[in-house]
Formats: sequence, structure tokens, C-alpha cells
Amino acid sequence: MKTPEEIRKRIIEVVGKTGGHLASSLGAVEIAVALAKVFEPEKDRIVWDVGHQAYAWKILTGRDGAFDTLRQFGGISGFPNPRESKADAAVAGHAGMAMSVALGLAAAHSAPNVVAVVGDSSMANGVSFEALNNCAAAKCKIIVVLNDNEMSISKPIGSFAKFLGRLITGVRYNRIKKAAESAGHGLKLTFLRGVYHEIESRIKGLFLANRFFEQFGLRYIGPVDGHDLAALEDAFTVAKEDKRSVIVHVVTKKGKGYRPAEVEPTKFHGIGAFASEHKTNMKSWSDVFGEAVCELARKDARICALTAAMKDGTGLKGFANEFPSRFFDVGIAEEHLMGFAAGLAAGGMRPVVAIYSTFLQRAVDQVMHDLAISNLPVIIGIDRAGVVGADGVTHQGVFDLAMLKAIPNVVIAQPKDAEDLRRLLEEALERGGVTAIRYPRGICPDKVEPLAGGHDAKIAIWATGDWLGKANEVAARIGAEVVHARYLKPFDAATLARQRDAGMKIVSLENAAVAGGLGETIGADLKFGWPDEFVPHGKVRELERSFGLDADSICERIAQNG
Amino acid sequence: MKTPEEIRKRIIEVVGKTGGHLASSLGAVEIAVALAKVFEPEKDRIVWDVGHQAYAWKILTGRDGAFDTLRQFGGISGFPNPRESKADAAVAGHAGMAMSVALGLAAAHSAPNVVAVVGDSSMANGVSFEALNNCAAAKCKIIVVLNDNEMSISKPIGSFAKFLGRLITGVRYNRIKKAAESAGHGLKLTFLRGVYHEIESRIKGLFLANRFFEQFGLRYIGPVDGHDLAALEDAFTVAKEDKRSVIVHVVTKKGKGYRPAEVEPTKFHGIGAFASEHKTNMKSWSDVFGEAVCELARKDARICALTAAMKDGTGLKGFANEFPSRFFDVGIAEEHLMGFAAGLAAGGMRPVVAIYSTFLQRAVDQVMHDLAISNLPVIIGIDRAGVVGADGVTHQGVFDLAMLKAIPNVVIAQPKDAEDLRRLLEEALERGGVTAIRYPRGICPDKVEPLAGGHDAKIAIWATGDWLGKANEVAARIGAEVVHARYLKPFDAATLARQRDAGMKIVSLENAAVAGGLGETIGADLKFGWPDEFVPHGKVRELERSFGLDADSICERIAQNG
Repeated sequence: MKTPEEIRKRIIEVVGKTGGHLASSLGAVEIAVALAKVFEPEKDRIVWDVGHQAYAWKILTGRDGAFDTLRQFGGISGFPNPRESKADAAVAGHAGMAMSVALGLAAAHSAPNVVAVVGDSSMANGVSFEALNNCAAAKCKIIVVLNDNEMSISKPIGSFAKFLGRLITGVRYNRIKKAAESAGHGLKLTFLRGVYHEIESRIKGLFLANRFFEQFGLRYIGPVDGHDLAALEDAFTVAKEDKRSVIVHVVTKKGKGYRPAEVEPTKFHGIGAFASEHKTNMKSWSDVFGEAVCELARKDARICALTAAMKDGTGLKGFANEFPSRFFDVGIAEEHLMGFAAGLAAGGMRPVVAIYSTFLQRAVDQVMHDLAISNLPVIIGIDRAGVVGADGVTHQGVFDLAMLKAIPNVVIAQPKDAEDLRRLLEEALERGGVTAIRYPRGICPDKVEPLAGGHDAKIAIWATGDWLGKANEVAARIGAEVVHARYLKPFDAATLARQRDAGMKIVSLENAAVAGGLGETIGADLKFGWPDEFVPHGKVRELERSFGLDADSICERIAQNG
Repeated sequence: MKTPEEIRKRIIEVVGKTGGHLASSLGAVEIAVALAKVFEPEKDRIVWDVGHQAYAWKILTGRDGAFDTLRQFGGISGFPNPRESKADAAVAGHAGMAMSVALGLAAAHSAPNVVAVVGDSSMANGVSFEALNNCAAAKCKIIVVLNDNEMSISKPIGSFAKFLGRLITGVRYNRIKKAAESAGHGLKLTFLRGVYHEIESRIKGLFLANRFFEQFGLRYIGPVDGHDLAALEDAFTVAKEDKRSVIVHVVTKKGKGYRPAEVEPTKFHGIGAFASEHKTNMKSWSDVFGEAVCELARKDARICALTAAMKDGTGLKGFANEFPSRFFDVGIAEEHLMGFAAGLAAGGMRPVVAIYSTFLQRAVDQVMHDLAISNLPVIIGIDRAGVVGADGVTHQGVFDLAMLKAIPNVVIAQPKDAEDLRRLLEEALERGGVTAIRYPRGICPDKVEPLAGGHDAKIAIWATGDWLGKANEVAARIGAEVVHARYLKPFDAATLARQRDAGMKIVSLENAAVAGGLGETIGADLKFGWPDEFVPHGKVRELERSFGLDADSICERIAQNG
């Protein structure tokens, strides 16, 4: 088995080339090694919550050789996936799912041991609490490894994080750490258990954690130094041999072993390849969004900005600095995010919520129930809408349109360029009501216009803003008119009627699932978008080519269809 | 102001005629009266969580006269709605939203006082925990009234409920109750406050609740006898005058004041009119579903059944009695429900999840992430799919199809009669993978067949199973062929191609939102379904007529369209 040092070296080397989640995975190396030693990876079930902690686990469980292909098209996934290895108990790209899945696996009596490895910020997500609340009732044993890096993607959010923080401050933590160390290497397990019980009894009564977790039927062990392999092995062994459900509270350091990531873990959360990342002055859609919201906020004191642990990713860092009292990061709590926005709006504010398309799926009920029924003036910036690339199946933002489309009062728009995004925000603010503005990951163009097409154009291509360039390219080659489907709902019915009256063939081109998308709404004759299958990881261009969504393939299919 | 006794009389009298949520509302009468006395209903903001507790509040805040029209078409809603009264701070039909919305209202500085009234089972929903976890960080004050009736819709679920239970058992509760009583009637507030502080200091340290809620930045007051008006007024006054956020733990009895509802509150949770409810031997779709799952479970030990606090409503009572070890009620925790099902399925079981369409909205992310990506063999029974009637905007089950349709690997079906539902369940079990079977509220017919239509039929009507009878009626009058759209996804493409080749006009008829529905999938020329607006409360037939979805209106519109 590779040592933690060897694994760290391998992770840094590969992620430097491929990009990926560096800081979280470096922090969880010893956890993965200890799990692999104490449990049987393919017989026991280890459920990683938000699997971007799990690179070491991949390397340890048969994927060291293929690790070079991390997040590459056809290569191994950046998240756990049972189809990739029996050692991955579940798909894990969204936060908070591990304890629920682990309880199910345990209730099915499917494995000798079931372990959920949960980050501290995932633990604060609603579904984790629902699972915690069902632990005792489920009448089966699970082991929860709470990977407490004292840090969400950005800073720790909420009272639960503070509560954990209090557990690990000061002398107590050090005392336990030392005791664990002295109990360490080379001793027989029977003896170790004795030592552990002694340590435990000293912990007992000292910490609130006992009380908190015991309310939920879990025995609490910790805090354990997450970079002390022997201490982790001991703790996991004790947890394994206990008949009750156990929570092992492990304290880790994000980015451990790679100085730049230790110092600035946020920067190294999800990163591009070190080598290929050439500095650019070009702005991303998120940057443009963030700046536009700042501009509006300077003129309108009602505007506030909200995010769920994605301040940097959604371009709201500047807003947070400039308007700290009007900025709210609720942590990984998408449901609460929308309910909170509803309250702010009902109270006279004008909330702008920024959320990734894939995580918006967590809050569609709140969009419908809390926002849309009352048609509250809330703007939802749907970032990473469309295929995102290397993050793969769990993160492709292709379902938001279908999920929101049926909800009355929700206006859905997609800009074509930076100026258009600004104007759409202004229009949404002006109109009031719920407006969802979707835009993709990546660079935002300065200016794009739809190709007008000649008087004799027989084909009209309706495209979402981000695919307007591609639509223009296709239109130029086949002689078509291009429509920027700026508002996806309600769409521009007058233009469609004019084109239908003129006998034109309608083609739709959308960076979203075809099922439930724009093409279906407008009854397009030929619909281009993501098909009815999960889109894997790879470069966006590779994926587009692979699914026949590059300009060449589109031209060809249009030609085939006459 | 009406007394609690007068209000109870009025509620029982009206709900006896109109149907509605009796037990919850009877339990919260004194809470409503005390809130109306201590706070200003239209100036302060009172957010009721799952508003079926709120009938007394409606009567107290200007809707006593109209209360006869409860849940009737054009009458007042069975849930709070700001459009109905300024005293309703938010729409509240789904559980767990109140604290999030209240935090938003408070952060917007929109009212002197913001109160969330949350039931104990709503408190255990994930979004409530997310809000609780954000209380301290939000830096604004809210008052949470925890209405603890020691009882979810059925029994209390989970450790949190047990934890609350421990707080109110034995002498301690009685001691507080007595102290509160002695502090009661007629005393000046300044003195009362002194008494309360004394009571409080006695409570302090006695109860875990202090610790638990103080972790989250809330001062704990309680437990308070929820039927002692004076004690409630005192507690709310103390809470109002405190600068910190406060949780007032109130213990109530469901059905209070109406003997049959006190004895069997589950039976009186949501009920039809007492008078008009004539006993029938006809089975509901839920009954048929529950029986069919039992039948399958007798032959296949892998089958287990899951629900989120809807055992009776989804017809799973029989299953729970016959297979207690294979039945799981997770409480109001829809997200956990699906994650738990994923784990059971991955562990070799064959979970059948029963959930109302409107609450499935809470779990679409889990359906996509936990179930569909791995194509786990889970059957989702979508009960109450389609318009449900008197429960109104928050409960109409018209969005499930659009929200699930875009998710790869999810097969969606809808049966036409009892036998068909049984067969669909068998087919789903046989096939494996994720299958969602939707069926409406109400009586399930024994046998329906789609009308074949003559050789010269120019129109094909594609209908969801529950609207097949209506489709047949229309077809008989206009001479059309009827297709039972048994599988909505993937649909019967061969039949559609045959009809298109024969030059037939395609009409869709679905008990779902038109946007994102079957009609869009098959590219119907004329689409009948629920339009792009929220469907209010009323009898299903009234609503169908009102939205032009009765057979007469449909025939007329088809004729108009040539």
C-alpha cells in the first residue's frame, strides 16, 4: 500500500496536469489510507460524501495506474462512481447524501461495515440532518467519519461549524491528540482498545459533542488528528468493533502537504491544470454577473446577493467585499437559500441568488412554493448552466430548464454576451417577479449578434445565448436565419409565428437537455441539445463532438433531414 | 376577539361541512389567540409552517365571515396566503419553510417582530435545520414557536422528536406548567417578567434544550402548556421583549376540544366533510397501490416500502402491519427518503417509495443524483399526481412530470385502472432501474379501455391513464382514436409514427402541466393540460371546467381548431 507521502506526491503531480479538487483530497489522504487498512474496500461499503475528498481512495483501490486520466474524456471520474470500482459505494458529487445512502446500505444488511465519510460543511446540509435524525430509528449500524477541516469551500458557515470548532480548540484537543499518539504504533488491538476506552472516559463529559450526537443515537469518538495515521486506524478499529452507530470526529487540514494549498485552500478547491492555466484578461460569465450585480447594488439599496457556499465560484467576492451587510452566504443549504430569499423579498429587498445549475436541483420545490406562488421579486443567477466538462455526470447543468419550465410565474432567460447579461438583470429588476437567468461556465464574449439570414432562408435556428456563436457558424454554412432565444420562457411567439407562416423549418440548439427544453416548447422540427443520457466528464469540446453537438455534426444532421 | 371555545366551535362546524385539516388546527387555537393578542397581525409578521394549523388564525384575522367558504372554489384557502390577508406572511403548504422565510423577513428589517410557528415534525425536516444553523449568522432576531403536538401526521419520527419528548415528560413539565399558571391571569407584565425570569433560571441547567438551541443562538423558553392562554401570552411577551432570537417550546394536543379527533388525530388530520362523506366500497388509487405492493412483497423478500410521514395517505398502512421490518417511515424528510432508498437498492433490496407528487418536488435532486445516475432499481409511486382539488396551489400535483422528464434512466408511467397499476408495478420490478408511476387522488376504476376509433379517424387523442375516460367521451363525440399513454417516458413512438404517417392530428390530454408535459414530448398539435398558472382550490370538476378541461370544453376547442 502506498504511503500518505507517496499518495500526496501522486495527487499533486496529476492534478497539476489535469486540474481537479486538490485541497480537499490532500486533506483526506490519511483518512483514506486508514479506511483501506481497517476495512475491506470492496466488501465493506465506504460512502464518500461529495467525493472530491476521494482521490487518495481512488489511488488506493485499483486506480493508481489510471489516475493520470483523472477527469479526462474516457478517463476516471473526479468523483466516486460504483461503475468505476466496487470500492466506490455510491455516486457522490452533491453534498450531504452519504449518511442517507449509508443507512440504506446498512438497513439492507449488504455489508459487514458501512462507513460514511462526511465533510463538516456537508454535515450542515439539510439532508444530512434528516439522515442523522433517522439514525436511531433505522435500527442498523453505520460509522460516520466526520472530516472536519474547519472550512467549507470558503469559510465555515453556521452554528454547527462553530459548535465543532469549540470541540477542537485549546488544550483538550492537544491532550487527546497526545494520548492518541502515545497509544499509537505497533501495539496490539486488544490493548489499544483498553487505552481507547480510557481516553474515551476522559473525553466523556468533557465535550458537548457526546450529548449532541448521543441524542441521535451515535456514539462520539474524537476529536482525532486526521493526519496521524495510527490514531485514525485505532479510532476506526474501535468504531468497527462497537455494536452501536459511531461518529468519528476527525480534524484535518485542507491542502495538507502542499504549501500553496495549505495557505490558500479556497484557491485550490477546484482548480485547472497548473501548467496549462495561462493568465487571461477575459472575464467569465460569473465575473460579469458579479460585477453587474455590484453596479445595480450601487444604485439600488434593496439589492442583496445570496449564495450557498459558492461566493468565489459565482463571482460574488467583489459584492461581498463592497456590500458586506447585503451579502449572505448560507453555507451548503440550497433549500434554506431560496426560503431566505423569499423572506428578504417579501420584506422589501431585491435578492439576487447565485447558484450552480446542478445545485439548484436541490431547491426547485422552494422556487415553486416559496417564490413562484407569491411571485416574489427574486433573481436567480443560474451559473454553470449547460455542460460543465471535467466534473462530469453529477455536475452537468442540463436539467434546470426542464425543472423550472413548468413552474408558473418563473421567467427564464439566457444572455448572449456580457452586455446582454447586464440588460437582462436590469429587465428582471424592473419587472419584479421570479426571474431565472442561466449562463454557462467559462468565458463570456463581449459581443455576439445572431446572423440575420437572407430573405430566402428556409431554416430558422433558435439558439440559447451561449450557443449563438455555434448557431451563426452553422447558419453561415447552410444559409439559415438565427434567433437568439433570449427569453426561454415566455419565448418570442411572434417571431415563431412569422417563421412558421413563412413555411420555415425550425431548428433548436440549446445547451440543456432536449427533454423538457426549448425545442419542445417551440415545437422545433429538429432539436439539438443534450440527449437522454448522463453526460460524462471530459473537455466541453470533446463532449460536444462526442454527442454530435459541434457545428460540423449539426450541419450534417440538418442536411440529412432535408 | 373570539374566545378559544368559540373558535373551536366554528372550526368544527365549518370543517364538518367543507372538510379540511381538523386536528392540527384545533391543537393550535390558543397559540393563534395568544399571537393575535401579543403581536399585531398585519404589522408584525407571523409565518405559519405548514399552514394547516392556521384556521384559528384565519378566523381571528378578518376571515371569520368567509370561513364558511374554506377550501371551496372561489373561497378562502386551506393554507395561509398573503394574497388573502396581510396577516398571512407567506404561502405555507409544504413543511419546514417558516424559519427560512422568517429569517429573510427579519434580515430585511421589514417588521417589528417576526414569528415562525413550526410543528415538531416540520422542525425535523432538513430545511428547518438549515435555517436553524443560519439563525446566529443571520444577525437578526426571530421568534420560533415550536408547536410540539408530540405527533407528526402519523407518529413522531426520529431522534429529534424523542429528544423533545424527553423535555416534556414527568414532573419537570408539570412544575413549569404550575408555575406558569400561578404567574397567570391579570398580573401586570413587569411583574410577570420577573416571575418568568425566575422560572427560567429554574429551567436553566435542567433541560438539554437550553444547550441544544443555544448552540444555534436561540434562547429556549419552555415547555409551555399550549392550551393555557395566559401562559402562552406570557411566554410570547417575554420572547417579544428579548433582544435575542428565542424558541418558545409549546406543548399542544392535536384535535383538542373535539373528542373524536383527540382520540384518533391521524384520522382527523386531513378529512372530507363529515356529512357528505358516504361510505363506499370503491378503492382509491392509494389503496390499490398499497395492496399491490403487499402482494408483490409476499412473493419477493427484497421488496420494502418507504414513505415520508404519509403512511395512511399513500395506502401503506397494510404493508406496515404485514411487513413491519421492511417498512420505513422516515418522517417529513423527502430528501433523506430517496437517499435511503438508494442505499437499500444498492444493498440488494427493491424499495418502493410512495410520495405525493407535490412533495416529490423536494427530492428531484436525489432522484437524479442518488438514483438515476446509478440506475438503481427503485420504484417511486407518485400519489396525488394531477390536480388534487381543495388543498389548492401548494398541493396540485402537476409539476412532477416536467421535473422528472429530463432525468436520464427514469421511466415514467401512468396506469389507467387497478389491474394496470398492478401490471406496471410488476413490469417495473422486472425491468429494474428507476421507475416513477404516477396516479391521481381519488377513486381507481376497475377497468377502462381506450376507444379504438374507426379506420377513418382523423384525430388521435393521447391521454394519461386517469383521463382516459374523459378522452373516450371526447373521442366518441368527435370520432377519434384514443391512445392510453401508458408509458410517458419513453413513449410509444411506433404508434405515434403510424398516426403521423396516416396524417392524423395528434391531441394530448394530460393531468399535468402542459409545459414540460406529454404533449410537448410527442409534439401534439393541440395540447390539453394545466396551463401556466397556479391552480387554486376547489372541487376537481369545478377546476377542470374553469380551466376548459372538461369534455365539453375540449370538444369545443378541438372543433374550433378544425
